[in-house]
Amino acid sequence: MTNSLKRIQIFDSTLRDGAQAEGISFSVADKLKIVAVLDQLGVSYIEAGNPGSNPKDLEFFARVNELELKNAKLTAFGATRRKHTPARDDRNVKSLLTANTPTVTIFGKSWDFHVTDILQTTLEENLNMIRETLQFFKEHGKEVIYDAEHFFDGYKHNPEYALQTLRAAVEGGASVLVLCDTNGGAFPNEVYEITKLVVEEFASDEVAVGIHAHNDGGMAVANSLMAVQAGAVHVQGTVNGFGERCGNANLCTIIPNLQLKAGYACIPPEQMKRLTVTARTIAEIANVQFNERDPYVGKSAFAHKAGMHIDGVNKAASSFEHIAPELVGNERRLLMSEVAGRSTILAKLQAVDPTLTKDSVETEQLINKLKELEHEGYQFEGAESSFRLLVRKHLGKYRPFFNLIYFKIIGDSNINGSCSSSAMVKLEVDGQEEITAADGAGPVHALDRALRKALEVFYPELKKVHLTDYKVRVLDTKTATASKVRVLIESTDGTDSWTTVGVSTDIIEASWIALVDSMEHKLLKDMEEKMRIYL
Amino acid sequence: MTNSLKRIQIFDSTLRDGAQAEGISFSVADKLKIVAVLDQLGVSYIEAGNPGSNPKDLEFFARVNELELKNAKLTAFGATRRKHTPARDDRNVKSLLTANTPTVTIFGKSWDFHVTDILQTTLEENLNMIRETLQFFKEHGKEVIYDAEHFFDGYKHNPEYALQTLRAAVEGGASVLVLCDTNGGAFPNEVYEITKLVVEEFASDEVAVGIHAHNDGGMAVANSLMAVQAGAVHVQGTVNGFGERCGNANLCTIIPNLQLKAGYACIPPEQMKRLTVTARTIAEIANVQFNERDPYVGKSAFAHKAGMHIDGVNKAASSFEHIAPELVGNERRLLMSEVAGRSTILAKLQAVDPTLTKDSVETEQLINKLKELEHEGYQFEGAESSFRLLVRKHLGKYRPFFNLIYFKIIGDSNINGSCSSSAMVKLEVDGQEEITAADGAGPVHALDRALRKALEVFYPELKKVHLTDYKVRVLDTKTATASKVRVLIESTDGTDSWTTVGVSTDIIEASWIALVDSMEHKLLKDMEEKMRIYL
Repeated sequence: MTNSLKRIQIFDSTLRDGAQAEGISFSVADKLKIVAVLDQLGVSYIEAGNPGSNPKDLEFFARVNELELKNAKLTAFGATRRKHTPARDDRNVKSLLTANTPTVTIFGKSWDFHVTDILQTTLEENLNMIRETLQFFKEHGKEVIYDAEHFFDGYKHNPEYALQTLRAAVEGGASVLVLCDTNGGAFPNEVYEITKLVVEEFASDEVAVGIHAHNDGGMAVANSLMAVQAGAVHVQGTVNGFGERCGNANLCTIIPNLQLKAGYACIPPEQMKRLTVTARTIAEIANVQFNERDPYVGKSAFAHKAGMHIDGVNKAASSFEHIAPELVGNERRLLMSEVAGRSTILAKLQAVDPTLTKDSVETEQLINKLKELEHEGYQFEGAESSFRLLVRKHLGKYRPFFNLIYFKIIGDSNINGSCSSSAMVKLEVDGQEEITAADGAGPVHALDRALRKALEVFYPELKKVHLTDYKVRVLDTKTATASKVRVLIESTDGTDSWTTVGVSTDIIEASWIALVDSMEHKLLKDMEEKMRIYL
Repeated sequence: MTNSLKRIQIFDSTLRDGAQAEGISFSVADKLKIVAVLDQLGVSYIEAGNPGSNPKDLEFFARVNELELKNAKLTAFGATRRKHTPARDDRNVKSLLTANTPTVTIFGKSWDFHVTDILQTTLEENLNMIRETLQFFKEHGKEVIYDAEHFFDGYKHNPEYALQTLRAAVEGGASVLVLCDTNGGAFPNEVYEITKLVVEEFASDEVAVGIHAHNDGGMAVANSLMAVQAGAVHVQGTVNGFGERCGNANLCTIIPNLQLKAGYACIPPEQMKRLTVTARTIAEIANVQFNERDPYVGKSAFAHKAGMHIDGVNKAASSFEHIAPELVGNERRLLMSEVAGRSTILAKLQAVDPTLTKDSVETEQLINKLKELEHEGYQFEGAESSFRLLVRKHLGKYRPFFNLIYFKIIGDSNINGSCSSSAMVKLEVDGQEEITAADGAGPVHALDRALRKALEVFYPELKKVHLTDYKVRVLDTKTATASKVRVLIESTDGTDSWTTVGVSTDIIEASWIALVDSMEHKLLKDMEEKMRIYL
């Protein structure tokens, strides 16, 4: 990183504020994985929770010290001491020391209304709470970051008092004064003006100014940028914008905005291409549907559909792209014209058979086959395992692990109106037949269980496999219940996970195709591993 | 609306730019429904496509004139004439006239690089293309809105030429000069400064300045606001931010930001509470997963999870909410304790039985029933018919039109691996039994046909009913093929159309519930009409 770039501290709060999002709950193992991913990306701080608030965080802080972090400092998070209680006697304050982090982040009130109506104490006592809590941690050798909760709302209601709270924080020894738009409703021009004024009064060699924005007005990213333009050098946010209500400022948008387009240094430049995989990995760990429209890292972020845009991009990529997708580890996709990069497909074919070239007959045939399948509604981006099986089949590098003789599904309504589903499967492996049946919650569930039961007779390793995700998408809603559906199935054997796809007007058939691919992928994978041992 | 508020024209492009989003494709019926919803919300303009670009849009424009719009003007959309072709001879230009709209929106190039490298013509010819195309429409009595494509990028590269393109548009007769951030990468301060300069040079009683922002930098909403603060009075965007790549500026965020918080008038104030239902209805029509974290209209937008926040909100709502959720038709949710909007539900109950009050026993019971169903995965916003049936059943204002004795579904794989589905239905009406069977493309299709066939014996009016849409959404992907699914079915009898919903872990059962509701809705509707004639 050259010295001419202005350095911005990126403070990630995915594990703390991110965990306040509806539907997100991290296990200790999840949190440890996320710390490793964030450290590799190269953020400056990782805010990881409060060891006093729950035993999960206590265990986390005990185990996180086993990780050796290359880039990030860990910080624990908590409130100022309670009113009229010395910091050294406050259970929550003391518990933060048990986290054993180099940094602590303390939040306090800046909005007079919150002091009097929510904390229900005097304005003076709130200043003491801020000053004394920070002093306590400074005396214990900690770096202290101060989060000024509701700073912008507070400033708009009582500017003098809001500034007094920052003075108390500086007196207490804060290294960073973080201006928080806690309710997320501030406008960019307000954030710019108020931050500028705070920078002018408080910023020094010892004290930096930071920003912590929420997205309730849809402007968290812009507000963060405006604060930086006003002189803030510390930006708090979360990966994918996870957070309470509408979420926090999305670091996956802020980092490239600042670093690729505005000349600031946020993370080591060689890590920028990890941005997309970082965003997706953390969404996976959080078990949250990834927003494919997210800037920079979404699958649609560089997807072109309008004919004129595709034409433009083919003439000059910058004509309809604000940055080159490779810079953040993403890729261009042309949705309409099936020009969908012969070279992209070739690279995938060569992963199965390295002897294939651009001009091989098989390449041509496979590209045509792919187009045909995509036209039918297949989509292989999310289903690499089905794609690899398809290529193998086409190249003759494939022998079926079983032959289906038939399956039957029976759905029944009973007297009280509820339904039951059962399935029968008969199949054959090396001349030996097996017939079995299973029931389940719905026809696909019954079929999945029956197929697995029959195959396990021949392939006991399938016992370890279970499905982790099942998605149905109706492709063409015109023909109502006769519509075509695409089914995606994600499976795991505890070590790896893989996704397979099936398309049909019949949801049973689409599910069957994806189920069979899933089993065959596992069997093929195990066979390849065995062969590797013999070679 | 008081005169003291500054009026902002809201220009909706959901049907045009929104349809460029990956995964979105509107049928003519979808487009007509969206026009009605947008008009009711009260936007100023609805951009609806290009009759020359495809036969679907041609049919749409022919049929849309049957709707009587209260608030919005329709506009067709197209490019400037081709190079070296008189406007009157340009097929695409002429086709816009066939749309028969009061307004046309024409886009042209403002970035010199696009003129020379993408259009591959001279800078001078591009100015002629803009001026002459606009003149052509003015001569045909149209109001003309001019979209200056890539204006901000163009201005940054060659400010003088970018301004010349606007001068050509004014000479051609443009009423609005819309500055487009086509690649979506502009920063809020740039947008503010450049818009201000354009407003100072061009804004007059005849010419307004507008903004059209994309979200590639995650700042489309903020950029739109900054343009308004710089003097723009026309804002283009889409509902839910649907659009190519990362989407367009989200009108569901911009409208309340401007109107509730910044003192501008965008839509009739009494319509603001329809914002949430508008956003959800259009997402349902587009068959796109709604982003529950969206500002203002998302289910999580006013959901509080952190204990301190819930405590604060209980003491004073404004402590952790930037606006009152009721203003936009949304509601507060405390994720720990389930305390949901009684008054919202009451209004819906009173639509069925006006004698119900807040304190009726039935109201209490129905609210509990609804909470239970929503917890199970039901969602009634898009399925009012199922909701009304539910209320009627609970109030005893309902008599079943038939009793199911049983149904059976049989799914079979045949030798070549493809599937066949058939269904048997036995039911009873006034003591008379009927059993029949049908086959179909998939189990739900077979069941739909068999049920209809059995019922038509008693209710021949059902012959007129057919399904127009069938949607499946997997609600909980944790349990894979045993996941819960929500099925939405839309039906029509040629006069009206209605939507019903069913939820179950079994897709057959969920479909059955929605199918039965659909038939009953039709029979009930016909009975009510007959009664009205007798009264």
